[in-house]
Amino acid sequence: MDLLIKNGTVVTADESFIADIAVENGKIACIGQNLSVDAKQTVDAAGKLVLPGAIDAHTHLAMPFGGTVSADGYLAGTRAAACGGVTTVFDYPMQKKGMGIMEIIEARKAMCDPEACVDYAFHCIITDLNGGALLDEFQAAVDNGITSFKCFLVYKKEGMMVDDATLIKVLLKAKEVGAITNIHAENPDVIDMNIEKFLKEGKTSAWYHYLSRPEFVEAEADKRAVHWAKSVGAPLYIVHMADKEGLEAAIAAKLEGHDIYVETCPQYLEFTCDVYKREDGRNFVCSPPMKGEESREALWDAIKTGLIDTVATDHCPFQSYEKDWGKDDFTKIPNGCAGVENLYPYMLSAAGAGKITWSRAVALCATNPAKIFGCTQKGSLAPGKDADIVVYDPKKDFTISVSNMHSDYDHTIWEGKTLHGYPVQTYVRGRLVYDNGAFVGQPGYGEFVKRAPKI
Amino acid sequence: MDLLIKNGTVVTADESFIADIAVENGKIACIGQNLSVDAKQTVDAAGKLVLPGAIDAHTHLAMPFGGTVSADGYLAGTRAAACGGVTTVFDYPMQKKGMGIMEIIEARKAMCDPEACVDYAFHCIITDLNGGALLDEFQAAVDNGITSFKCFLVYKKEGMMVDDATLIKVLLKAKEVGAITNIHAENPDVIDMNIEKFLKEGKTSAWYHYLSRPEFVEAEADKRAVHWAKSVGAPLYIVHMADKEGLEAAIAAKLEGHDIYVETCPQYLEFTCDVYKREDGRNFVCSPPMKGEESREALWDAIKTGLIDTVATDHCPFQSYEKDWGKDDFTKIPNGCAGVENLYPYMLSAAGAGKITWSRAVALCATNPAKIFGCTQKGSLAPGKDADIVVYDPKKDFTISVSNMHSDYDHTIWEGKTLHGYPVQTYVRGRLVYDNGAFVGQPGYGEFVKRAPKI
Amino acid sequence: MDLLIKNGTVVTADESFIADIAVENGKIACIGQNLSVDAKQTVDAAGKLVLPGAIDAHTHLAMPFGGTVSADGYLAGTRAAACGGVTTVFDYPMQKKGMGIMEIIEARKAMCDPEACVDYAFHCIITDLNGGALLDEFQAAVDNGITSFKCFLVYKKEGMMVDDATLIKVLLKAKEVGAITNIHAENPDVIDMNIEKFLKEGKTSAWYHYLSRPEFVEAEADKRAVHWAKSVGAPLYIVHMADKEGLEAAIAAKLEGHDIYVETCPQYLEFTCDVYKREDGRNFVCSPPMKGEESREALWDAIKTGLIDTVATDHCPFQSYEKDWGKDDFTKIPNGCAGVENLYPYMLSAAGAGKITWSRAVALCATNPAKIFGCTQKGSLAPGKDADIVVYDPKKDFTISVSNMHSDYDHTIWEGKTLHGYPVQTYVRGRLVYDNGAFVGQPGYGEFVKRAPKI
Amino acid sequence: MDLLIKNGTVVTADESFIADIAVENGKIACIGQNLSVDAKQTVDAAGKLVLPGAIDAHTHLAMPFGGTVSADGYLAGTRAAACGGVTTVFDYPMQKKGMGIMEIIEARKAMCDPEACVDYAFHCIITDLNGGALLDEFQAAVDNGITSFKCFLVYKKEGMMVDDATLIKVLLKAKEVGAITNIHAENPDVIDMNIEKFLKEGKTSAWYHYLSRPEFVEAEADKRAVHWAKSVGAPLYIVHMADKEGLEAAIAAKLEGHDIYVETCPQYLEFTCDVYKREDGRNFVCSPPMKGEESREALWDAIKTGLIDTVATDHCPFQSYEKDWGKDDFTKIPNGCAGVENLYPYMLSAAGAGKITWSRAVALCATNPAKIFGCTQKGSLAPGKDADIVVYDPKKDFTISVSNMHSDYDHTIWEGKTLHGYPVQTYVRGRLVYDNGAFVGQPGYGEFVKRAPKI
Repeated sequence: MDLLIKNGTVVTADESFIADIAVENGKIACIGQNLSVDAKQTVDAAGKLVLPGAIDAHTHLAMPFGGTVSADGYLAGTRAAACGGVTTVFDYPMQKKGMGIMEIIEARKAMCDPEACVDYAFHCIITDLNGGALLDEFQAAVDNGITSFKCFLVYKKEGMMVDDATLIKVLLKAKEVGAITNIHAENPDVIDMNIEKFLKEGKTSAWYHYLSRPEFVEAEADKRAVHWAKSVGAPLYIVHMADKEGLEAAIAAKLEGHDIYVETCPQYLEFTCDVYKREDGRNFVCSPPMKGEESREALWDAIKTGLIDTVATDHCPFQSYEKDWGKDDFTKIPNGCAGVENLYPYMLSAAGAGKITWSRAVALCATNPAKIFGCTQKGSLAPGKDADIVVYDPKKDFTISVSNMHSDYDHTIWEGKTLHGYPVQTYVRGRLVYDNGAFVGQPGYGEFVKRAPKI
Repeated sequence: MDLLIKNGTVVTADESFIADIAVENGKIACIGQNLSVDAKQTVDAAGKLVLPGAIDAHTHLAMPFGGTVSADGYLAGTRAAACGGVTTVFDYPMQKKGMGIMEIIEARKAMCDPEACVDYAFHCIITDLNGGALLDEFQAAVDNGITSFKCFLVYKKEGMMVDDATLIKVLLKAKEVGAITNIHAENPDVIDMNIEKFLKEGKTSAWYHYLSRPEFVEAEADKRAVHWAKSVGAPLYIVHMADKEGLEAAIAAKLEGHDIYVETCPQYLEFTCDVYKREDGRNFVCSPPMKGEESREALWDAIKTGLIDTVATDHCPFQSYEKDWGKDDFTKIPNGCAGVENLYPYMLSAAGAGKITWSRAVALCATNPAKIFGCTQKGSLAPGKDADIVVYDPKKDFTISVSNMHSDYDHTIWEGKTLHGYPVQTYVRGRLVYDNGAFVGQPGYGEFVKRAPKI
Repeated sequence: MDLLIKNGTVVTADESFIADIAVENGKIACIGQNLSVDAKQTVDAAGKLVLPGAIDAHTHLAMPFGGTVSADGYLAGTRAAACGGVTTVFDYPMQKKGMGIMEIIEARKAMCDPEACVDYAFHCIITDLNGGALLDEFQAAVDNGITSFKCFLVYKKEGMMVDDATLIKVLLKAKEVGAITNIHAENPDVIDMNIEKFLKEGKTSAWYHYLSRPEFVEAEADKRAVHWAKSVGAPLYIVHMADKEGLEAAIAAKLEGHDIYVETCPQYLEFTCDVYKREDGRNFVCSPPMKGEESREALWDAIKTGLIDTVATDHCPFQSYEKDWGKDDFTKIPNGCAGVENLYPYMLSAAGAGKITWSRAVALCATNPAKIFGCTQKGSLAPGKDADIVVYDPKKDFTISVSNMHSDYDHTIWEGKTLHGYPVQTYVRGRLVYDNGAFVGQPGYGEFVKRAPKI
Repeated sequence: MDLLIKNGTVVTADESFIADIAVENGKIACIGQNLSVDAKQTVDAAGKLVLPGAIDAHTHLAMPFGGTVSADGYLAGTRAAACGGVTTVFDYPMQKKGMGIMEIIEARKAMCDPEACVDYAFHCIITDLNGGALLDEFQAAVDNGITSFKCFLVYKKEGMMVDDATLIKVLLKAKEVGAITNIHAENPDVIDMNIEKFLKEGKTSAWYHYLSRPEFVEAEADKRAVHWAKSVGAPLYIVHMADKEGLEAAIAAKLEGHDIYVETCPQYLEFTCDVYKREDGRNFVCSPPMKGEESREALWDAIKTGLIDTVATDHCPFQSYEKDWGKDDFTKIPNGCAGVENLYPYMLSAAGAGKITWSRAVALCATNPAKIFGCTQKGSLAPGKDADIVVYDPKKDFTISVSNMHSDYDHTIWEGKTLHGYPVQTYVRGRLVYDNGAFVGQPGYGEFVKRAPKI
């Protein structure tokens, strides 16, 4: 055996038990009690949790946006991932009008491959059907392991929005080829109306970013997306759910038996719109913005009852000087915040505090995204799966600061947040990539995850 | 006294009782038992019901549409109204891009005034805010008795649709000036997608008119309109509700205390989409189309529980030769059906059959539209109100045929429908305009109804 | 004419208008504008509201309870009614085990008839089916104008409770004969369990009266009663609804089309359980007790949306010395509070303050109880109906005090409550019984109201 | 190693994967791919599923009822269990009035211990609090591994019912000691009323067993039990849920975050009340009876969405001659049917047919009951757990007949039911007890399962 992790408490999406895990050739070879196997390396995990590596199903690395590019490229982003216990990141390449799906995927793969420190997968953002021809490429995309597409219901002016008919075409074609459609749900016309009004009135602070996209503006689009998916019988995955009313609509449809999945992010679980009142409020600007306390509580409730399926980060940091562009005009603030390194620690500390079970944290951050998105080799600690493993010390205290993060950004909304419990080691396919505070992996080690369609 | 209607059973929105009604100067002077007053004319209504005249809150007279004009002009339409017990019709003048509100209203008033056989009012359809300037005209419109506006969420290609931001602006401004916003709710993009698909596939019969605008296409827009109205706290009146899911969303919001009102039409209560399978299916083409039996039943249930507020007709007939334009292409069929003369007889016959109470029929067709739209002199048989009175014989049988209707159209979807009970006399402000089958009124007698805003 | 009330604003359950009302032989003869009739007596009601007399559908006069008898006998209770604008009171005679229905009714009629200052009707409380024989008397009761029965789901030890099977038998038989079943919904076993516990722990203040019958204890019985009524398809009237969860269950069933009616009382709209923390908390002890603020708000919401049907008082006052019996043991406090004189003024002042419309107040206190309980001659100001009329001055201020009430009790929970607007005259069948603060009626004038069954 | 099961598809509550399982000392030692260990016995499970043994959380063995004793004693019942893949049975000893908890448990343990062929646990039925003293024994019961109690809301005449106050006391005390309360929910008074009526009318066939306990009679008690549990914040497990309305109430509370668990049985998933119309309908008599098709479908829907937690059998067979006692009077039919041997095969065949996933079948029949009832060593195939293992051949066809079952009863409601897929081997703590049609275990091998409380 290559690696033996002994005496840890193994946590699956369903239960916990004390066991040893043996790894060979990057795969989990066996799990048992008191395994008497020879291993090149043995780790004593007594008193620690042994978890499947997290899958951050939502990141934007090297993402052109707002006149700049997100601060973390593939190297920095996946390095940070490794250090936060994330062993697979999903990135969101965006189709530009006229482009084919595999064209953009290959271009991004070429960028990512030499830099990736953990494994990576791509959702593909669809902005234009190229007169319908793009739909014919869905099958090839799936054959190449791209089994999820994303549409924006917002960013109309930016040319990224699809209309309802396009969304329905994507939903139906995706279903046909065994893929799933992700949606960013906000209403563009109403946002633009609000922005125009606020700017005219000289209301330019970050607080008006929130007020231009309040609860009901997100909820409308959530409800509409759910309506179409349910009406045409196609699966839907709503990214970064941040409001109560939209969440309730999604849950209602899910309970009627529709294939509706909901993702939220740590920032919506931790913060409310009140942060936009702070002087540094622009650093928290992301879309959708954080909402009121009622939404925050509704999200936690659904996390607890299992009606939210995944937690991911929408990781898309920008540098302070870029955020400052919007000091006097909130529309000039590049939208996005840091998160990939904080996901698993945040959710696990909630488990440690008794808000959810350890198994729920694992399900939300690893097992569920693997299942929903067809990562058949990922997301659980079962024999034969990739040995993506996190050793977690439930007693270690850690205070997040830009200085102890492993990204390239120069500030973080998580600054000063203290967590009880923290990852101490991360393995990707059996190779140690993070060790007690230090990145020990290697750019280029990460591999593309070819995903399986739903049959 | 000018008129004494004796011994009838007076029906209000709330109760029934036997009484005499005395009329003077076009107003109801008094209601009592065994009134001993001298009257120029005395009518014995023993065994008959005495009802407030109906208000058809939804007609399209002399309406340009689909390359032609609706078959009933103001004269024919209001003549038919009189003969069906409708004493006030609401017409829907449409603003053209660039036009002012009072401009279109005055133009239409000039057309209608010399022809009107019953009283009339106008909702104004808003298609363009003229860069915002149009909103500034709302107050003047209200001052001139126009207290309701309408927006289309459909007819995008035709240039009649408003986007969500425009709808919200109209909702808010209407509320501010004490007016209410009416909405035609269907989703244009999805309809156009369906139409394109069907035509490409050679599916051109009237049945595909329904399939291109099925339940969920209407429901989406209903739900969206309700969402915006509820979110911004403005009153909303949904015209011609025809599907169950949208209805349920409207009812849910209404029960939460929001000012949401729902109108449906006799065609949605009587027919289902099955009519589009008939060879003459094109004669039934209207938008929204009739839906499945489940929706029809849901509409009746809400009629019974009082959760639908009004029944109106969307009267907009076209001639057979015009309907024939769409024989080989359903998109070429002018949308609309006859109805103004059938409204009250249809709903009253349902009351006679015990489906609803007489009072409910009166509330739906007279009292409620008067209240919702500020017709302070209309809709009830109370002292001081306009003497708009219908004498109804609950025992008279009547079979609808184009030959016994009083419009100018050459066919009707109601052909052959037999009703038990029928109006025998209609009075508008005390003047007899319909007598036992014959129109006895006079074009130009009808007056513009200046409506009051909500305070 | 005997009486002419001129220039008032007549309020019906549906609308308001200025008119004169002429009365002859105790009936409303006619309603009109500027009536030119001779009348023995003319009242100028300019600036006043002219309303149908209220019907208090829930009083307990001369009621034996808790070792004493309620403080208001038939004379005092109906005198107070007259002075509060209530022209018909419903009393609740209780069958004792073994007694027949008409036996108890006749006994009570004999007590009431010589004392009644306003008209009166009886619901009959059923405590024992006499082995089934009592059900055979329902038809005779209905023939004698008793068209409503009541069951307690509580007061088990007191021998007043019926079990679920008995309730179902009553529901079904009542329906068969065109009557309706009223229910007092609380759960006896849980109350007794709580009482035993509290007394054992020395928790004896009025606050523990509330804690022994909290929201969920009432809600359970509400839900159960609704369940049975709905399941067997029989009409149900829930008296004195005081909690949110039970209310919601009743509303849900009502909206599904079931014949479920809900009554609440002014004390539940005005007070919360906090009053039991007061030193004089025992004076507020009634069953069900007032609940938390959330329930109070839910009741008001349902009053506004029209989902509560009636407001009545559960008038059942006891003297201070009797209330004092429970100073050191809340179970010894006779249950009940004053209310009959405060009902209409309280609800009308809410209308005056804009919380509800004048018409809604009239519907809740007069028109709806008349309809639900078959008082065909009562509840509205229509020609031919009994001339039960209240003249109300919307500008008159009035502060409730035991000193200006017209009952026999020596304290009131309404002490010190100031109302804006107050009744100035009450007429019962055309006879003045209350005039600006003074009772001017005559004991024995009130008549038994023979009610009609539902057909 | 004692045992090596190779090449099978291991199914957990969460996923499936191909692996070998090694067993030592009755425990699962390790799970891995291509395990190279020496084992005394090696089984090739290629093409087979390897599942955790089922836990039948609901049986009545040697149960005195209806004047006789259920046909399967502990030996026959647990032998049948073994042959159906059930490795742990829960039996329901019933406290008799005056008896202590451990007294009845010990008596039953003494009966069971020498006979048990698989492991066994006890829920304890509480019928009498012995004046409250019984509650003081709950802690001792939990200390002895009895962590669940059961109350009947029915069987009033039989002296088994508890009233609502007793239920609440049990709920609260159980919660305090980390136990859970099971409930049999039907309404006794209404059942007795129906029975009395039917017998009087000469309606004596099995069909009237159903009609005396129809949907709404079960639903009422379900809703009431949920109400109390939710209101006092205690965990509740509803046994043998058989109706839609009660199920919906339980689900609603569960989704609000309450600890409500729902069990149903194969008979409610497979049959409807129509079976009672058959000539041999008495053989299907159990309580609650099977309901209408709408309930059956609602149960399957909740099985699919995961809102039902467990499937168990309520195994309680009677011999034909005993069932015949009720030939002319349905109340004389002993209530109960066979099932323990059919549970796992039935649910797994549903998985094989694609109605649910294999993991869902495992969760419902093994993992969930283990978790809910504190069987910490059971219910999953994880290292360190008891080696309770079923090898299942998804291709083996099997037709159920009394002749191939392993109980002592002489007929079965499952007669003639053909299943695709069937267990071929069952291991209890590593020992083979069932092998391809034959029972190969040994009475007395089964051990008492000491369960853990919720902390």
